[in-house]
Amino acid sequence: MQRTEISTLGEFGLIKRLTGDLKPVQPSTLKGVGDDCAVMDFGKVQGDKVQSTKDLRVLMTTDMLLEGIHFNLEYVPLKHLGYKAAVVNFSDIYAMNGTPTQITVNLGISKRFSLEDIEALYAGVRLACERYGVDIVGGDTCASMTGLTISITCLGVAKEKDIVYRNGAKLNDLICVSGNLGTAYMGLQLLERERIVGDDKKAQDAFEGKEYLLERQLKPEARRDILEALRKAGVKPTAMMDVSDGLSSELMHICSQSGVGCCIYEDKLPIDYEAAALAEEMNLNIVTCALNGGEDYELLFTCSLDDYEKLILIEDLYIIGHITKPEYGCNLIGRNGEELALKAQGWNAFGS
Amino acid sequence: MQRTEISTLGEFGLIKRLTGDLKPVQPSTLKGVGDDCAVMDFGKVQGDKVQSTKDLRVLMTTDMLLEGIHFNLEYVPLKHLGYKAAVVNFSDIYAMNGTPTQITVNLGISKRFSLEDIEALYAGVRLACERYGVDIVGGDTCASMTGLTISITCLGVAKEKDIVYRNGAKLNDLICVSGNLGTAYMGLQLLERERIVGDDKKAQDAFEGKEYLLERQLKPEARRDILEALRKAGVKPTAMMDVSDGLSSELMHICSQSGVGCCIYEDKLPIDYEAAALAEEMNLNIVTCALNGGEDYELLFTCSLDDYEKLILIEDLYIIGHITKPEYGCNLIGRNGEELALKAQGWNAFGS
Repeated sequence: MQRTEISTLGEFGLIKRLTGDLKPVQPSTLKGVGDDCAVMDFGKVQGDKVQSTKDLRVLMTTDMLLEGIHFNLEYVPLKHLGYKAAVVNFSDIYAMNGTPTQITVNLGISKRFSLEDIEALYAGVRLACERYGVDIVGGDTCASMTGLTISITCLGVAKEKDIVYRNGAKLNDLICVSGNLGTAYMGLQLLERERIVGDDKKAQDAFEGKEYLLERQLKPEARRDILEALRKAGVKPTAMMDVSDGLSSELMHICSQSGVGCCIYEDKLPIDYEAAALAEEMNLNIVTCALNGGEDYELLFTCSLDDYEKLILIEDLYIIGHITKPEYGCNLIGRNGEELALKAQGWNAFGS
Repeated sequence: MQRTEISTLGEFGLIKRLTGDLKPVQPSTLKGVGDDCAVMDFGKVQGDKVQSTKDLRVLMTTDMLLEGIHFNLEYVPLKHLGYKAAVVNFSDIYAMNGTPTQITVNLGISKRFSLEDIEALYAGVRLACERYGVDIVGGDTCASMTGLTISITCLGVAKEKDIVYRNGAKLNDLICVSGNLGTAYMGLQLLERERIVGDDKKAQDAFEGKEYLLERQLKPEARRDILEALRKAGVKPTAMMDVSDGLSSELMHICSQSGVGCCIYEDKLPIDYEAAALAEEMNLNIVTCALNGGEDYELLFTCSLDDYEKLILIEDLYIIGHITKPEYGCNLIGRNGEELALKAQGWNAFGS
C-alpha cells in the first residue's frame, strides 16, 4: 500500500485533501470548513417546519492543543495554558465579528498530572470564560497514555448582517491590523532560550522588563475591544481573520479567498519596542518574526477606503497596506522601496 | 504542594470537582454540564435584542478518543474508528431526543500515520455523516508527539417540547432499553483474546460466525430508529440517556438525577445469544457484562406506565424493570428472586 508522509502536504494541504469536496446537506449549515468559524442558521419552528430566522446566526470553532507540540510545561504554567486554550477559541469567534457564548472542554490527562494540576488548568479556562462572558457547558475528561491534550469547541452568535468572512476584501480596501506583531513569537524565543540554559535565577533576571513579551506568549487576549471600537465608529470590515499562524499566511488566505492581491509596507508594521530589542540581541530579523511568528491573536482585516477617516481615530489600530488586483500577488514593500513576495512561512504543524 | 491522584476521584468525581459550581451567565444557555448534551436557545433578533424562540433548541455534545485508552489500532481498522468516533456523538444527541446536524473533527496525528491512514479514518467519519445526514463544518488538524487523538463535537436540534433529559423519571415508570447489552463488550474480549494469541489465521477462524459481536464493538450504530418508532407510537420518554458506560452506571445517573430508585430484572435483560455463548466459553458472567460492559450505544429510557400497550408493539425494545421510590435504591432482581444492589462499575477512565 502507498504511504504518503503528511509533511509533504502540510496542514492546509491535508485539510484540503480531507474536506475539499464536502457538501453540506443540512439546511442549517450556511458555511462549513474554510473560515475562522462555521456558520449555522438554526431558525425557528413554524408549525412542523424549521424556518430561517433571517437574522441570528450560530458560529462554531474548535482548537486542539497537544503537549510537546503546542506547549511545553517546563515553562508554561497550567493556569495560563487553560486561559490561552479558551481565549484562542474566543479569538476565532471575534474574527467573524461574533460574540462567544459557550464552550465545551475536552481533557486527556496522563498519570503525571494530579488533581491540583488539573484544577489549576481548569481555573485558567474558567477565568477566561468569566472575563469574556462565556459558559462552560460540557466536555469529556479522560485518561491519556502520555501527556496532556486540550480540545475546546466554542459557540458564538452574530447577526447575519454583522458577520465578516475571509472572502470579502475588495480592490483598494485598506489592510488593518490591531496591536503589534511578532511579540508572542519573541516571548517564545525568550522562554526557549532560558529553558535551554536551565538556570532559574538567570532566567528571572533575563525576564525582568520583558514581562509584556512573556504575557503575549503565555496569556494572550482576544481583541473584543477592537470590534467594539469599530462598531462605535460605524465601520464594518470587508474581510477579517485573527492572526494565529502569522501575518503573511493569514493575509494570503484573505487574498486567495477574496480573489485579490495585496501590498503591505514594512515601515507600517506595528512592532513592539521590547520585541525589536530582543530580536536584535538574539540576531533575529524582527520583520520576519512579525510576518511569520504567529500566535499574536490580533485581528487582521480589510476596510473600504471610505472608512479611512474613522479608522485613524481608533486606538491600537494600524493601516499597513491596501488590497490590489489579483495579478499583483501578495507583496511587502521594504524600507528602501524594494518589493518582496509574501510567503506563507507560518507555523506548519506537520513540518519536519 | 499537595498531590491528589485523579484515580482517587474517578471520572465523575473529577467532573463534579471541576464543574460542580458552574453558573451559566449567557441567557442562551438552558442546560450546561450534567446530561448527554448541553441545551441552548439562540432565539432570534427582535430589534436590537435576542428573544427566545420558545420552540427550537440547539444541542451540543463532545467526545474524545485517545489511542491506547479508547482504541487499539492492532485490531481496530481506521475507517471503523472514524465511523465510531462520529456515531458515539450522534448517539448523545439522539439520547436527548434530538437530531444531529453538524460536527467538527479535531485530529492529533503522530508521524507514524500516513496520509492514506488519515484518509481512511476520515472516510469513516464521512460515511457516518452521510448515513446520519450530518455535516462536517470544521476542525483542527495537527501533529502529535505520539499516537492518534480524535476529538469530535456535535451540534443537533430539537423542539423544546421533544427534549428528554435524564431527570424526568417518575415513580412506577417503566424502564426500557433497546437492542441488547454486553455485546460490544464481548466483541472487545474476543478481539483482545486473539490479539494476545497473535496468530492471524487462528483469529480469522475464531471470528467466524461472531461477526455481529465484532461489529457491535468496532462499528456501533446510534438508535435513531428507536426514536422514530417511539414518535410514531406517540410515546415520549420521561428520562433518557445512551448506554456508553454500562447499564448500571447509566441507570444510576437517571435515578440520582430524577430523585428515584429502580428495580430491574435479570431475566428481562436483552442478551444476544452469540454474546452469551462466548461469555460461557471465556468463563465470564454475561449478566455482569450486560450491566457493566459499556459501549453498547443503545438507548435507555423510562416511560409512563400508560404507554405500556404502545411500547410492547415496538420492535427491538425491551422493558427491563420499573422506577421505585428513592429509598428502595437501585436493585437487580436475580433469576431466583434475590435482590442485588446495582453498582456503577462501568468503565472508569481513571481507574488503575
